[in-house]
Amino acid sequence: STSSTEDVDLVRTLMQLCVDRYYISPGQTNVDLFRRGMSCRYGPLGMELRRNLLDQWWHAVTRSTVQVFGINTLSSSEDTATDGRGQLRIVESEHVKQILEQQDLSKEQLVQEVRQLLQRSPSMRTNFLQGALEEFVPSLELVNRKLPFGLAETGLCFQPSDGSGCPAELTQTSLVWFCSPRTSSQWLDHWTRQRLKWWRKFALSPSDFSSSDVPKEELEETVSRGVRITYNFPWGQEPLEELWSRGNTELLQTHKGVRSKLQCRDGRKSVPCVVSVTGNMDRGVMAFLSNSLQQVKKEHGKQKLQQRKVLKLHPVLAPVKVALDIGRGATMELRQVCEGLLQEFMEAKISAWPGYLKSLPTVEQLNAKYDEMGVLFTVVISENTLESGLIQVRSRDTTIKETMHISEIKNFLSRYISAADNI
Amino acid sequence: STSSTEDVDLVRTLMQLCVDRYYISPGQTNVDLFRRGMSCRYGPLGMELRRNLLDQWWHAVTRSTVQVFGINTLSSSEDTATDGRGQLRIVESEHVKQILEQQDLSKEQLVQEVRQLLQRSPSMRTNFLQGALEEFVPSLELVNRKLPFGLAETGLCFQPSDGSGCPAELTQTSLVWFCSPRTSSQWLDHWTRQRLKWWRKFALSPSDFSSSDVPKEELEETVSRGVRITYNFPWGQEPLEELWSRGNTELLQTHKGVRSKLQCRDGRKSVPCVVSVTGNMDRGVMAFLSNSLQQVKKEHGKQKLQQRKVLKLHPVLAPVKVALDIGRGATMELRQVCEGLLQEFMEAKISAWPGYLKSLPTVEQLNAKYDEMGVLFTVVISENTLESGLIQVRSRDTTIKETMHISEIKNFLSRYISAADNI
Repeated sequence: STSSTEDVDLVRTLMQLCVDRYYISPGQTNVDLFRRGMSCRYGPLGMELRRNLLDQWWHAVTRSTVQVFGINTLSSSEDTATDGRGQLRIVESEHVKQILEQQDLSKEQLVQEVRQLLQRSPSMRTNFLQGALEEFVPSLELVNRKLPFGLAETGLCFQPSDGSGCPAELTQTSLVWFCSPRTSSQWLDHWTRQRLKWWRKFALSPSDFSSSDVPKEELEETVSRGVRITYNFPWGQEPLEELWSRGNTELLQTHKGVRSKLQCRDGRKSVPCVVSVTGNMDRGVMAFLSNSLQQVKKEHGKQKLQQRKVLKLHPVLAPVKVALDIGRGATMELRQVCEGLLQEFMEAKISAWPGYLKSLPTVEQLNAKYDEMGVLFTVVISENTLESGLIQVRSRDTTIKETMHISEIKNFLSRYISAADNI
Repeated sequence: STSSTEDVDLVRTLMQLCVDRYYISPGQTNVDLFRRGMSCRYGPLGMELRRNLLDQWWHAVTRSTVQVFGINTLSSSEDTATDGRGQLRIVESEHVKQILEQQDLSKEQLVQEVRQLLQRSPSMRTNFLQGALEEFVPSLELVNRKLPFGLAETGLCFQPSDGSGCPAELTQTSLVWFCSPRTSSQWLDHWTRQRLKWWRKFALSPSDFSSSDVPKEELEETVSRGVRITYNFPWGQEPLEELWSRGNTELLQTHKGVRSKLQCRDGRKSVPCVVSVTGNMDRGVMAFLSNSLQQVKKEHGKQKLQQRKVLKLHPVLAPVKVALDIGRGATMELRQVCEGLLQEFMEAKISAWPGYLKSLPTVEQLNAKYDEMGVLFTVVISENTLESGLIQVRSRDTTIKETMHISEIKNFLSRYISAADNI
């Protein structure tokens, strides 16, 4: 089998680390959700990592050289759908109970009433496509009826259970791209290149992220071509983002076939084609966590072999950029220095960890903890700082400790992060 | 009546402007949702305004001098709730249909099966409180069992319909603050001051935002004291954010009364008290739009009186910071200059509007449109720019036009926005 014992161990190590280091909340059900690429209860670090990832996606897609507008649609809609939608409905318990309590109804009437209630109940979205198709007409005004342009949205989508369990939540990203029919294939290629480049930009080993054409037989009826960006997890390939060239069937359906409303000024009065780009950012979080986990064997003393685990998350994604700790010295005064520095970091929007609130017995334990959290730098404030203003700064990636003046650290971190962003 | 004709006109003007200027999508149902303080379909500008508002809330709450951690819980939960929860359930249509189609069931059996299905179905959250209470125990590790600290979350919550219509979505912000029982009243005051200051920071007329104690008889059973921050809309006061001092009843309930798990190190081994701070950011968007709309009568020519409408949104909140337009001159070359400048703005994360793609007949019409959109500055690139590098920059707030070198505009805007942020 391809899944060796080593891989199983790797997965177990990763999941344990995610729980221990505040990426996800404890509990087997929660870990399973996460493992399956669903939204789960995230701890402060996981929440921040997903936030950073979503920000980067948004920035890359809406501030690219082409025109993309952000929109916000509702997560439930009252439309009674003709297609696959309407699988998940929001029902008010009270309404159902009222029907069930009516003593004078026959069984047939009861069935009828429940059916109608279900029909009237809003259905939860499973993706953002339908919302964007509906917003196409109001958006034409924005672009002076000129193609191409896109509508972007991120947020929660809901997925029916696969038979057994209960419905799942997903944090999705969606770009719905409208272009002239003759260019749709080129645009599919354009977005595939852009998206793959984006995923790889933040990776420690970029080759684990790859794209491949989806075989014809796996495509939905309305889709003429599809590409999948996948990540090579220890347990196999899983999709992160899917790009479908969908033609104009769904757009026409949504607007009841009124072609005149949909026509754009690309010289031929054609109805635009749609390319949809849909990402799963919960699985994205797991992909980057999995990709950035390095286990280094190191000799400890002269006998024991220890595993050092480091989460080498990209500086832009790392949820904590710097941890603040106290060395030996007068605790009260050092704490005040820490608090001042913490405040300075926060005002500069550098996410900092107040390590000084909870000291660990040894420096080794402290470093091990921060490496597992993926903290970029650790700053130690000691008695020396009070005298000379000097602090010790340890790098996660090099493990080298540098001495720096306390007034320099903020700019040093800002420069380090933005340099990593612009590569 | 307090609602004069003038106020009715004002509301109508505001709503029309929100639709015309890409804040919300058209359609009476959508406008009504927005008007009632619910989440609605937002256009690109409304989406960006809400995004800016949520970012500011997050920054103010999680990066304050006190310890607040961000978390992410699920929007639906499988727990069968004992209290008011469980009103809204996600039901899979297919499962209901399977029950209804069973011919051999008696009416009683049918009622029983539907009841059980409903009981098993996940219920949608109506707020973030329960999620935060559940995360309290895993979070204790973060703070070394020391009080006070808070858990923050933002996102969608769902609200049962008020009898008639269908369930609504709300974009909520939530801070759940855990503190020692003897300090809870002080913390309620602290957070009230902080939150009111925040709302007023972005207001054109701060006095429209106010706070007041909630009368005892309006409080839920578990709440000992409550404060409401409201906005004075043309149609009356509406709540934006609510602060409740809730004691520890719900925290104990959530953790099945196991006091030892909940005790903190504040010297007395007490079970923490909870202060919840819950905001409605959809209504927040409407409050700031309503607050920033100025109607100025101006003389046009010598006869006609015209209303100039300006959306004087705070520089930090304004969804578009700068619009780029083309004056007279060689269109092709000017367009290229615009595209280059647009790219520069986007890289600096200054949200820019590509006005040059859709030119309006007169400068007056253009300015009127941008004022209604709340665009801070309008840059006009003209033939002159190609020769001398000079551009014309018009300010929304002063209507004054300045001449500036094209190389200065990016820094000028960055400085302007961050100066407004730091007041």
